[in-house]
Amino acid sequence: MSFPSSKIDHLGIAVTSIAEARGFYESLGLAVADEETIEAEGVKTAMLPVGESRIELLEPLSAETPVGRFISKRGPGLHHIALHVNDISATFESLKAKGLRILSDDIQIGAGGHLYFFIHPASAGGVLTEICQDSISDV
Amino acid sequence: MSFPSSKIDHLGIAVTSIAEARGFYESLGLAVADEETIEAEGVKTAMLPVGESRIELLEPLSAETPVGRFISKRGPGLHHIALHVNDISATFESLKAKGLRILSDDIQIGAGGHLYFFIHPASAGGVLTEICQDSISDV
Repeated sequence: MSFPSSKIDHLGIAVTSIAEARGFYESLGLAVADEETIEAEGVKTAMLPVGESRIELLEPLSAETPVGRFISKRGPGLHHIALHVNDISATFESLKAKGLRILSDDIQIGAGGHLYFFIHPASAGGVLTEICQDSISDV
Repeated sequence: MSFPSSKIDHLGIAVTSIAEARGFYESLGLAVADEETIEAEGVKTAMLPVGESRIELLEPLSAETPVGRFISKRGPGLHHIALHVNDISATFESLKAKGLRILSDDIQIGAGGHLYFFIHPASAGGVLTEICQDSISDV
């Protein structure tokens, strides 16, 4: 088992408008590789690869969505940090056993088989932290 | 010239206590590689490598320091994102020409010849952003 977190997978940044926010990253030579609208989560996303990681811009589809409420409360800015691991099941069980506040009862499955779960900021130094792994075949 | 940002160099996370905050990252298999007290900036730091990047925990030496004031105002959490570039001079000039708010008149030189400057959150999607390069010989 390769247990330790192996890299920063992505940084989720809440923005009011991807069209406006992408300019800053483009002026650093980064480019949007992928845009997606996830109706179920009420969010539009744009992914900008940087090295082995990605910047993920998150634009709410309305004010009454998790990212919309985040922006109303705190303003645009970092929403979450996602750390990639090579054994998400072992990580999930280990953090649960340590009593950390995990925001779901189980590991979640996202688009393309991507596995993830979130740790509450109160258990993660004030930062909403996602733990993720590309897919089951990545174990 | 290799202009684009090449990786996330580090994430600066403001914590009230490194001794308490490091446990979360250690439970993800990360380890503190380096600890330092920077009196001039009123901060104690701990660096935890993760892939090609690092998590930098920032503990204020007192409430009357930049990181101390940040925590009083917003609570512990992400303080800044640092993006590594291969030509910091070209990046500085290009961002200045675009009218971005840069927090110093020039590129700063830190420990070991490390070069850096900060961009105000108002010009960087709500996130205090550091642009850095290892040293002049890294150009």
